[in-house]
Amino acid sequence: MKILITSGGTSEAIDRVRSITNHATGNLGKIIAEKCLRTGLEVTLVTTKTAVKPSPQNTLTIVEITDVASLAQTLEELVPTHDVLIHSMAVSDYSPVYMTGLDQVKNTQPIESLLEKTNAEGKISSKDGYQVLFLKKTPKVISMVKKWNPEIQLIGFKLLVNVSKEELFQVARDSLVKNQADYILANDLADISPTRHGAYLIDREQAYPAQTKEEIADLIIEKLLEKRR
Amino acid sequence: MKILITSGGTSEAIDRVRSITNHATGNLGKIIAEKCLRTGLEVTLVTTKTAVKPSPQNTLTIVEITDVASLAQTLEELVPTHDVLIHSMAVSDYSPVYMTGLDQVKNTQPIESLLEKTNAEGKISSKDGYQVLFLKKTPKVISMVKKWNPEIQLIGFKLLVNVSKEELFQVARDSLVKNQADYILANDLADISPTRHGAYLIDREQAYPAQTKEEIADLIIEKLLEKRR
Repeated sequence: MKILITSGGTSEAIDRVRSITNHATGNLGKIIAEKCLRTGLEVTLVTTKTAVKPSPQNTLTIVEITDVASLAQTLEELVPTHDVLIHSMAVSDYSPVYMTGLDQVKNTQPIESLLEKTNAEGKISSKDGYQVLFLKKTPKVISMVKKWNPEIQLIGFKLLVNVSKEELFQVARDSLVKNQADYILANDLADISPTRHGAYLIDREQAYPAQTKEEIADLIIEKLLEKRR
Repeated sequence: MKILITSGGTSEAIDRVRSITNHATGNLGKIIAEKCLRTGLEVTLVTTKTAVKPSPQNTLTIVEITDVASLAQTLEELVPTHDVLIHSMAVSDYSPVYMTGLDQVKNTQPIESLLEKTNAEGKISSKDGYQVLFLKKTPKVISMVKKWNPEIQLIGFKLLVNVSKEELFQVARDSLVKNQADYILANDLADISPTRHGAYLIDREQAYPAQTKEEIADLIIEKLLEKRR
């Protein structure tokens, strides 16, 4: 069984110096990858330069990506040759289109004509007191996985912040259906601390709880191996 | 002689999940710190969680900061008790104020009234096709250093992208005067590769060239020791 794991977080460049990123460290993906490797499974880990990674070993391949576009390209290539995708990477929702001073925004009609512009300079000037950054929604990579490989087992991840358990489960089940995922690992930032990582592995009927990153990894691997039997 | 060094890059939070950051790794600051330590100087390194760091040692103190506000607070405390500040950290120019969908921006008059708003939610919703992020210029921390300690030797850093040598020198000298710096290390991203780091250490009269991070570190330490004599 060949396991594809994504970990860490994508970054979207604003210019050659600045970018929008998220606080994902790659820790959870690393722990899942290490447990898979110890179980004797072959792992391809798609991650970023700054993410923490397992130590090199024969049955581990590491592929580094940067932004959503490079993630999509890499997964399109790798998904067809793997049996499972554990998609723990925090993928950017939005990508910068154009950044300019507030005055230009106030003096442009209609405002959406600014979406046609791009910043030519390598480092956007920092003279204005206020700047305005226009961002465009990125394509949802997870929604393409089952098109690339209808047979792959797909485990998606959903991180929300300070919501009720009902809302967390609802959002996770919506994602499950929409992306044809087999499981969604649903978690809330409020339940994550250095020593704890509360989460639920959700399928259409059930929600299996976990309290730590190790428990999350064990739970996911247990479910994958069950399905194979 | 007590040396204060900043390295890595600040991040400015958009919400509890996303932030704007820059590609600074902390590499140059680490090399400068290591050379100072080997020269027998006492070093305080102000850096970030993700930046690379020298290995722990008796004459090295490491202080971690996150955003411009925490950097300013930390330096205000440390600058008065140090003889030199080597400010190699990439400091964010802008900090997020408010993020919203394009439709709200189009339907708001005047647009700058949105600058009074703040995002209450922990993770800003990702339903809109386009979002607009308003950013405010951050206070220039380097401009406050000589107010906190008029006696400190200040080495500032200026990174531009794809400019002429004349423009690079002009911007560096403007920064030298405005911030009462003793030197500015001026560099252009186009001159930086994994094996090379072209830069000039600039004072009011001269520009001393360097080709690698090691040469930059040597040059800075040489100039500091010269001044002390």
